Amino acid sequence: MTELLMTPGPTLVPLEIRGAMSMPVIHHRTPEFIELFHETTNRLKRVFKTENDTFILSGSGTACMEAAICNTVQKGDKVLTLVNGKFSERLGDLAKVYGADVKVLEFDWGSPIDPALVKEALTPDTKLVTMVFNETSTGVKNEVKPISDLLNGTETLLLVDAISALGGDEFKTDEWGVDLCISGSQKCFAMATGLGFISVSQKAWSAINDNPNPRYYLDLRKYKDAKPTPFSTSVTLIYGLSAALDLIAKEKLETRIVRHQTNAKLCRDGIKKLGFEILPISEDVCSNTLTAVKSDKAAVIIKKMLEDHDIRIAGGQAHLKGKVFRIGHMGSITKEHVEKTLKALEEVMKELQ
Amino acid sequence: MTELLMTPGPTLVPLEIRGAMSMPVIHHRTPEFIELFHETTNRLKRVFKTENDTFILSGSGTACMEAAICNTVQKGDKVLTLVNGKFSERLGDLAKVYGADVKVLEFDWGSPIDPALVKEALTPDTKLVTMVFNETSTGVKNEVKPISDLLNGTETLLLVDAISALGGDEFKTDEWGVDLCISGSQKCFAMATGLGFISVSQKAWSAINDNPNPRYYLDLRKYKDAKPTPFSTSVTLIYGLSAALDLIAKEKLETRIVRHQTNAKLCRDGIKKLGFEILPISEDVCSNTLTAVKSDKAAVIIKKMLEDHDIRIAGGQAHLKGKVFRIGHMGSITKEHVEKTLKALEEVMKELQ
Repeated sequence: MTELLMTPGPTLVPLEIRGAMSMPVIHHRTPEFIELFHETTNRLKRVFKTENDTFILSGSGTACMEAAICNTVQKGDKVLTLVNGKFSERLGDLAKVYGADVKVLEFDWGSPIDPALVKEALTPDTKLVTMVFNETSTGVKNEVKPISDLLNGTETLLLVDAISALGGDEFKTDEWGVDLCISGSQKCFAMATGLGFISVSQKAWSAINDNPNPRYYLDLRKYKDAKPTPFSTSVTLIYGLSAALDLIAKEKLETRIVRHQTNAKLCRDGIKKLGFEILPISEDVCSNTLTAVKSDKAAVIIKKMLEDHDIRIAGGQAHLKGKVFRIGHMGSITKEHVEKTLKALEEVMKELQ
Repeated sequence: MTELLMTPGPTLVPLEIRGAMSMPVIHHRTPEFIELFHETTNRLKRVFKTENDTFILSGSGTACMEAAICNTVQKGDKVLTLVNGKFSERLGDLAKVYGADVKVLEFDWGSPIDPALVKEALTPDTKLVTMVFNETSTGVKNEVKPISDLLNGTETLLLVDAISALGGDEFKTDEWGVDLCISGSQKCFAMATGLGFISVSQKAWSAINDNPNPRYYLDLRKYKDAKPTPFSTSVTLIYGLSAALDLIAKEKLETRIVRHQTNAKLCRDGIKKLGFEILPISEDVCSNTLTAVKSDKAAVIIKKMLEDHDIRIAGGQAHLKGKVFRIGHMGSITKEHVEKTLKALEEVMKELQ
């Protein structure tokens, strides 16, 4: 197995984390595990930069997306969904499933969310605004603070999907006023897939406690009351997450973020040098954790990168399929991995000329 | 870490499975992984003894319990819940959450379900009957066939939770006419927690397709259409499940079931020889995967087993707390493990005299 995983999640899982996941399983109702779980949750909160209740769910990031929606949104509630990629679209789909009156504010895939247009679209009775911080489908980063500033002093809740950036880019849940922040294990934490994370503000709890939607596994009230989890959690995956947090602590979160910034810049510079154009409209809206590149030859490039160089990169999603390729540089990806990828890409492009 | 896990799940995870979970992660959208996932699903179906659609969900067994309920039951639907333990109760709670008109038919915790009383309680408009095959809280096994026989030729669906028995006891999903069968990775599969399994009959699909309940992550229609999964699945846990199925294939399922039967008998005989009384009312209703034992000294026994012998057994649940201890002998637990546990128990009892 020599394939280098340069996809925007799942990403390379370091040996320390994989080793932790091979440890003998202990029971999840023992004091030892409860302590590990609490400690892991507290360390996770430091990555979220939040004092809000934060929960670890057994499931994918989508489970947490749904938990954020089905616990807060009631039938007929007005939801403003800010869309500039596939994952921001999914949040709107989820709100529609729960009967919300969803207004979708669309931006070009490649452009960031424009707060001025959000301001225009907002009504005082909007229950929830949803957005994605780091759009995995486009490599665009959306500023959160200008959106939360619009909601200051209102009853409107802000839900931010930070799945593909938390732990690899600066994110300040509390300072930015994010009521519901979602993340997952398999992106910048460099862990295996299978755990979703969600933080819940006091403001959000009011909506959650009043919400009559039928729910059980994703009922956040159950997680709040649980010691430590309402349902069996995966001890193996918690071992892995704990090891992932060890690695983050060892590197220091701020240093890790700088590494992601540096590698992202290195990747974009190399890409441009090879004559490519990136999908995001400008440098300052670019993701620190992945780079989306325009190319009509995306399919053959991805194929040759894998077959000739054992490097897996990702394609475009939805209408960007075949027109874009995406390079992930998140989690444990190093400068050397990015350089190796760029070098391989250079060779692939030479052959394709 | 020398603690021997003799709890009724999670249970001892063999080295082969833990090793598999430490393998480098590949991407879940690659042909290699899709093939592994399909193959794993097909092998799982052979353990279920079903030709029905069978899905692997990222989540605990409860996620699958909810999926079985929220996809089939509508508000006002009549549900007959057969209860003789904690987990059968949970199925009723779930149906109530989704607005069903739930009739709970209670049996003593320790007694099996009586089909004659079920026949009396059944009405032609009952949408769903729920039961647990192997009650983890009491160590009682409920016969499925006599219940499904009552539903023959009716529109009523049968949901069976086989979480703590599948892979360790004989279970025939199709032959027994089970419309929705649920299981999970951390019991007789001897795998880590984190994956739930559910099989769905044609009869159940009609109810599912007609059901307007809001759902997304647990929407079984999405799993049916997916290639291979609608949301990111945990490659690491699928590696583990595949290794678990390798071990089952190597031992042969029938041999594995006989091992469970033999170990269960060994455990009960040893327990009785020590002067204990088992919770189930008779030998022929006893679980093959765990033994529940009556004892007012349960708390101190559990404590001393752990502290003096490094063997973890479980306590009673709900009103059986402090009155019962439970020994798991599922998954990879051997005759030697059971003997070691009985010997330790003998010593503990000597000391307590």
